Amino acid sequence: MSIFLVDEYKDMEPYVPGEQPKDKPYIKLNANETSMPPSPKVFEAISKAEIWNMSYYADPHCHEFRTAVAEVYGVTEDEVFVGNGADEVLSFVLMSFFRRGMKIYFPDITYGFYRTYAKTYGLDMEEIPVKDDFSIDINDYMNLEGDIIFANPNNPTGLTVPVADIEKLVRKNPNRMVIVDEAYADYSTESCIGLATKYPNLVVVRTFSKSRNMAGTHIGFAIASKDIVSDMNKIKFSFNPFNLNSVTMAAGIAAVKDTDYLKECVNTIIKNRKWFTRELENIGFDVIPSKANFVFCYHKNVESEELCRKLKEEGILTRHFADERLKKYLRITIGTRQEMMAVVIAIKEILLEKAGVDGETESFDLRLSKCVGA
Amino acid sequence: MSIFLVDEYKDMEPYVPGEQPKDKPYIKLNANETSMPPSPKVFEAISKAEIWNMSYYADPHCHEFRTAVAEVYGVTEDEVFVGNGADEVLSFVLMSFFRRGMKIYFPDITYGFYRTYAKTYGLDMEEIPVKDDFSIDINDYMNLEGDIIFANPNNPTGLTVPVADIEKLVRKNPNRMVIVDEAYADYSTESCIGLATKYPNLVVVRTFSKSRNMAGTHIGFAIASKDIVSDMNKIKFSFNPFNLNSVTMAAGIAAVKDTDYLKECVNTIIKNRKWFTRELENIGFDVIPSKANFVFCYHKNVESEELCRKLKEEGILTRHFADERLKKYLRITIGTRQEMMAVVIAIKEILLEKAGVDGETESFDLRLSKCVGA
Repeated sequence: MSIFLVDEYKDMEPYVPGEQPKDKPYIKLNANETSMPPSPKVFEAISKAEIWNMSYYADPHCHEFRTAVAEVYGVTEDEVFVGNGADEVLSFVLMSFFRRGMKIYFPDITYGFYRTYAKTYGLDMEEIPVKDDFSIDINDYMNLEGDIIFANPNNPTGLTVPVADIEKLVRKNPNRMVIVDEAYADYSTESCIGLATKYPNLVVVRTFSKSRNMAGTHIGFAIASKDIVSDMNKIKFSFNPFNLNSVTMAAGIAAVKDTDYLKECVNTIIKNRKWFTRELENIGFDVIPSKANFVFCYHKNVESEELCRKLKEEGILTRHFADERLKKYLRITIGTRQEMMAVVIAIKEILLEKAGVDGETESFDLRLSKCVGA
Repeated sequence: MSIFLVDEYKDMEPYVPGEQPKDKPYIKLNANETSMPPSPKVFEAISKAEIWNMSYYADPHCHEFRTAVAEVYGVTEDEVFVGNGADEVLSFVLMSFFRRGMKIYFPDITYGFYRTYAKTYGLDMEEIPVKDDFSIDINDYMNLEGDIIFANPNNPTGLTVPVADIEKLVRKNPNRMVIVDEAYADYSTESCIGLATKYPNLVVVRTFSKSRNMAGTHIGFAIASKDIVSDMNKIKFSFNPFNLNSVTMAAGIAAVKDTDYLKECVNTIIKNRKWFTRELENIGFDVIPSKANFVFCYHKNVESEELCRKLKEEGILTRHFADERLKKYLRITIGTRQEMMAVVIAIKEILLEKAGVDGETESFDLRLSKCVGA
């Protein structure tokens, strides 16, 4: 630590992203990437001419990109803010609308970055416990004295709050800002985007990192009232005006317009999620019904931390959280069908080994059914 | 403005980047872009495989990129911080090391963003007037009670402070941070990078937007002590861990390694700067001797604001600043030789028209020599 670091930051706990080991090939199901490539239109968009064009500054107002997003989501350009990943968009929301010491509420089980943000910006954070089944009860948020942020679907549970409930919350508290992080909403059935331009106290944040298969491109956007977007742009122009480079925006424009590819990829993930959930349940897993591109699950015969470690030995990365309320579970991203088949086989072998079930002459499935009691 | 905007930001003045009109083709010499493409290695690096790879998160530690920068500049990876443009790097410096109300000093004539930053972060800024010839006298900074930031070469003047003077300043004040913005240093003869790992209170900031012809890619980096870099990374991981996307880093790695191309492009710009300066002087311009990829100049027969406007009518963008001490001058970026020839012709025509010099039968140059008294 240097002698110059601002005191408030000395005890800060930076966010810890999912690991990216490089020692051998891995099936990477620990960071909710989708294992599918960006839209073919993205490959076309990053032409040699576009690369040449990198020599000139990109449009800091992101006019073309914001217009494209606006058209796809049925809003206007000035209701769209675009950023270098949803994390940056959220940072700009926090920077614009939260002063040190202000109150912010979020569920105790949700995307870990909200806690990091709250500490970074010196906010008075309060975590509202989710129910025993991990669901968020909107009534817990109705009469609070501060702003609220949560992910819907929630991470790492995959559970959702009905949009009608969110509308009640937003309507009841017009002077409190509600930030809904819809990173996984494309895998769900509902979205708050329709409400974001109707209520001036609602901000909906989206990302290209999940359903658009572009985690490495790091594009995020917010849809909100014109005033909110204008405020955020003012902050952006005071922090880093050129936050999206020209190639990134070209990729983003191509991707956002390709609605057919989005639907196709989302449908594939939903099918794989259904198949994988059933496979897990068949061998005795408890799986929380997910509306996202991951499942949160556990098996009574093996600690999730151990399962995570053993899967890693087999070259499969999943995510285990050490938090008290989460440590029982394992979060597994939904990838391609082939990847999920490999995971199922690996898990079955781990369960067999764990149970010490012999009987080499019996079939794999028969031995497995004995060990998991299925 | 929304009701939610933090009070401190209500009167903020966001930075105004150089204009990017799209109504017709322009020779763009208003934002110190170089009119040359990125290295051919960048075109190779952005392969189809690299685009496919956008589906996975990039390395938030930027290991490969930082290593490449470190090797080129003769430092170690942990002495390199990389960011989404030098503006973001500077923002992280300010965020990490400056608390609201802290004192910051910079020249009254320099990159306009320092003022924006100081306001954004609520700093107590004090502008130190440069001399009448626009030079910075290091003695003005020797006994101050606060941190210092300046550009070297300075913008928009192109003048430099000798590195030996900066070393004196840094050595004399070990508890005060000195930030040297070397955006244009490749066009100069000196750099503070050699000092940055020697003195724990010096931060040197660089960009790929100028000498590497990649303004649209928006990559910047800082070289400083391990402690400074470690602090900045801590802040980055609390704000936006994935601040550089995978394609951007691939482009950056390819560009930074291509030292030959860098030298070739820099030499071209220096040659063009010399040629253009002489051409301007020949027709009566006063040109400040520049060590950057632009010249700061004026002509006694035409107001610079008018010249800027008339050049724009001819499809040539230059930059005029309205500030009292700057308004006499015009900043013209050095582009290709063809572009600079076009500028010279356009300026000559404007001067002729301005002087109302007739004499169609005389040669262009003869008429011009009469009008400018050369």
